[in-house]
Amino acid sequence: MTQPQKHTWKTRLHEVIYEADTPAGKTFDVVLLILIFVSIILVMLESVAPMQAQYGDYFYLGEWIITIFFTIEYILRVISIKKPSSYIFSFYGLIDLISTIPLYLSFFIVGTNALLTIRALRLLRVFRILKVTRYIGEGNKLARALRDSRPKILVFLFAVMILSIIAGTLMYIVEGPEHGFKSIPVSIYWCIVTLTTVGFGDIAPVTALGQFIATVIMVVGYGIIAVPTGIVSAEMAKGERKEPEPQKLHMNTQVCHH
Amino acid sequence: MTQPQKHTWKTRLHEVIYEADTPAGKTFDVVLLILIFVSIILVMLESVAPMQAQYGDYFYLGEWIITIFFTIEYILRVISIKKPSSYIFSFYGLIDLISTIPLYLSFFIVGTNALLTIRALRLLRVFRILKVTRYIGEGNKLARALRDSRPKILVFLFAVMILSIIAGTLMYIVEGPEHGFKSIPVSIYWCIVTLTTVGFGDIAPVTALGQFIATVIMVVGYGIIAVPTGIVSAEMAKGERKEPEPQKLHMNTQVCHH
Amino acid sequence: MTQPQKHTWKTRLHEVIYEADTPAGKTFDVVLLILIFVSIILVMLESVAPMQAQYGDYFYLGEWIITIFFTIEYILRVISIKKPSSYIFSFYGLIDLISTIPLYLSFFIVGTNALLTIRALRLLRVFRILKVTRYIGEGNKLARALRDSRPKILVFLFAVMILSIIAGTLMYIVEGPEHGFKSIPVSIYWCIVTLTTVGFGDIAPVTALGQFIATVIMVVGYGIIAVPTGIVSAEMAKGERKEPEPQKLHMNTQVCHH
Amino acid sequence: MTQPQKHTWKTRLHEVIYEADTPAGKTFDVVLLILIFVSIILVMLESVAPMQAQYGDYFYLGEWIITIFFTIEYILRVISIKKPSSYIFSFYGLIDLISTIPLYLSFFIVGTNALLTIRALRLLRVFRILKVTRYIGEGNKLARALRDSRPKILVFLFAVMILSIIAGTLMYIVEGPEHGFKSIPVSIYWCIVTLTTVGFGDIAPVTALGQFIATVIMVVGYGIIAVPTGIVSAEMAKGERKEPEPQKLHMNTQVCHH
Repeated sequence: MTQPQKHTWKTRLHEVIYEADTPAGKTFDVVLLILIFVSIILVMLESVAPMQAQYGDYFYLGEWIITIFFTIEYILRVISIKKPSSYIFSFYGLIDLISTIPLYLSFFIVGTNALLTIRALRLLRVFRILKVTRYIGEGNKLARALRDSRPKILVFLFAVMILSIIAGTLMYIVEGPEHGFKSIPVSIYWCIVTLTTVGFGDIAPVTALGQFIATVIMVVGYGIIAVPTGIVSAEMAKGERKEPEPQKLHMNTQVCHH
Repeated sequence: MTQPQKHTWKTRLHEVIYEADTPAGKTFDVVLLILIFVSIILVMLESVAPMQAQYGDYFYLGEWIITIFFTIEYILRVISIKKPSSYIFSFYGLIDLISTIPLYLSFFIVGTNALLTIRALRLLRVFRILKVTRYIGEGNKLARALRDSRPKILVFLFAVMILSIIAGTLMYIVEGPEHGFKSIPVSIYWCIVTLTTVGFGDIAPVTALGQFIATVIMVVGYGIIAVPTGIVSAEMAKGERKEPEPQKLHMNTQVCHH
Repeated sequence: MTQPQKHTWKTRLHEVIYEADTPAGKTFDVVLLILIFVSIILVMLESVAPMQAQYGDYFYLGEWIITIFFTIEYILRVISIKKPSSYIFSFYGLIDLISTIPLYLSFFIVGTNALLTIRALRLLRVFRILKVTRYIGEGNKLARALRDSRPKILVFLFAVMILSIIAGTLMYIVEGPEHGFKSIPVSIYWCIVTLTTVGFGDIAPVTALGQFIATVIMVVGYGIIAVPTGIVSAEMAKGERKEPEPQKLHMNTQVCHH
Repeated sequence: MTQPQKHTWKTRLHEVIYEADTPAGKTFDVVLLILIFVSIILVMLESVAPMQAQYGDYFYLGEWIITIFFTIEYILRVISIKKPSSYIFSFYGLIDLISTIPLYLSFFIVGTNALLTIRALRLLRVFRILKVTRYIGEGNKLARALRDSRPKILVFLFAVMILSIIAGTLMYIVEGPEHGFKSIPVSIYWCIVTLTTVGFGDIAPVTALGQFIATVIMVVGYGIIAVPTGIVSAEMAKGERKEPEPQKLHMNTQVCHH
């Protein structure tokens, strides 16, 4: 920015990769976004057994093409920035690395037992989706409202935790392992399933006393659900009153390369 | 409107069909509404196997009567408007067409395999219910509050999508196909079922680690449910403060025929 | 009220029964409340098979005692009021009648088939609980907020209905009777179970397309849940701003006997 | 506080135990918090059958160490306070006692039948977690908003209770014991499970009429969920407007020992 006349290849590359103002930069970003989505759809389709059986080879080919592109992108990002460590150890730098290496690892690790681990590692490429958040303005009101409500939400989560531990222990005593409440941790899991009104039904109270306690937990959960909503509502209403300017989902990739 | 003395049959027809101010127009609208509801109840009852077996013939007769009425209505709407294309290609024009033709199609398409397709097409007459929305004032505050919150709701849906993809992949790795998490898309389906606190229980985590991740997903979902509520609450409270005039469910069918 | 010196037995009886200001009136109300609760607990316990088998005779005795008391109360209410019809055909008058007669009916109706009907009728005594609402101030802010939001809530319920009918029909076409979506009404039932985030899991989509549509329904339901909450929140916040006086759960049984 | 020069051992002990301002007091509090968490994790792990089988002896040892520490803490708290009864009969005093004695009781009570009771009693040590709430500022806004909304929440809970009793009885009449609605209390349990949108699915309506009533209950529950949220939102928004000072999760253990 200080010496705009010195347009070395490094500066130009930086502009294309890190900024979205020039036509080349915009094209780069769009191609990147498409590849991220293709890569995630590939990960998903590979996990569907009948699809993997039929199109497995194409998926493997597609993965290699994408991995090579992301490898080149990673190397270019590292060499085009003045202080490589500021990118490598940043949040997005780590995601780029984690989402690129699993396929290479499959060459170095061998053995049937290790293959399962590699398979799991390859699935981690799904984290590439977090790169998309790069293109959403981070300074938006929503995130701010959540951040401002943090102390209240912590108190709330703490209350939920205490309630679940006590209610879970009571349900374990009352219902016992013979009705699915195998241990206190499982009972606490059931309590959170109930308090959050999810209610899978894989475990459900059977005894009269257990059903009564469950009723109390549900009514309390019903009251508790009001608390975080109230917190966020109040926080957002406050924000609305303070800043009436419109807020849009905008792309902002302008990063200073110094 | 410019020459009120020129009351040709076309103008009068337009008034009856498109406007609800004259007694004839009001009667037309009420008859139309009743026929729409009868038509939808017919579609529903036909799908109940024992009812179809017993009263199938009456249902078929009723459908023909209604279809003929809607056909006449469609033709009249087309000929009574000055610019037919403005009706034919409008949202309600397309619904009118889609909700009328399936029965006629059953004459042209034959063969046992095609019959299933026709059966499905005939069910699409249920879309006629969307014609009812014609009679609800569209400019109401609710729709406006939702429209104003759109950018925030998009960011929110995007966050839910990213969370579901990552959590779904983790659950697929942890629980695996042997516990119902057959593939990543199924795991993502389970994640959304859990995040929205629906919790069918057709799939539920079995391993300790899976139940722990499920607990985290539920508590996060619990916090997330607060966000859209907060957005709409704040938006409506803002609306309330700005415009204190009463808002009613009103009928407004006044349409200029020019 | 006009001639306070004319304290006939009827006027005094009216004061005891209809008003709660005198010590006698207060005692009457407390006894009535206790008997209502005893009566409802009796109805509940009778339905528990092992309890009915063991204590059936005591329950029957208790019911007769309570029914006789409520009969006397009903007769006194009718004779102590100046215009009996204003009580008999009022909401509470009808509840008093419905909650008292079932036991007497069991004498007049005989036959094994009719006994089942009587059994169901006897359970209707549970409606006595609505008499308790007499003791809650009706003019409270909550009811007012709900009443004021009625037009908006109607639009909202209408939207839910249209959405359920269309989504229910689609799910019936996609999943079909072989996966539990037996008919369109059952599919609509499933849709409402899903939209309201209850999610029993007695019916759940099995096909990939069905699960995808279910996902869309859930996310939409997630957004929809925000609407009534936003409506009530905004309405209450408005109420709070207008009337800052404290609001309590108060007993108000003062009724003019003219 | 009146005579700061009289630093007897009792006064110093009181400062360490009851106050958190001196370094010794802070260390005491941190050690206490860690021991509470260790104690609760022990209770949980003991309930997991395979863990109890393998590490049972270590768990037993750990429990004794913790119980002895809590016993000493209890005795010190009693002797260091001027009016022991004010601690013993306080909320936290009773929790301290209940969470400490179960292990000692296992010596005095013998017999296989009594052992089950002791096992349940030992689990009650989980109540120790309530001691953690001591370290959360009680005067926070959240608790105040909930306390201020109490009358409204009571009216709301009362409405839910009346609705559940009536709807539960209707479902019992309609569905009956053959579809899982065994008795009215079980039907009421099902109603609350449905109204709170938990929906376990252990009991679900099967008949057409039952499913229709369930639909009505769910839509009403959907509307009802808006009420407590609206109450808390409005109450918090009011609080926000009144007191704009920041609110933090703070530790406040300053207690006057007089």
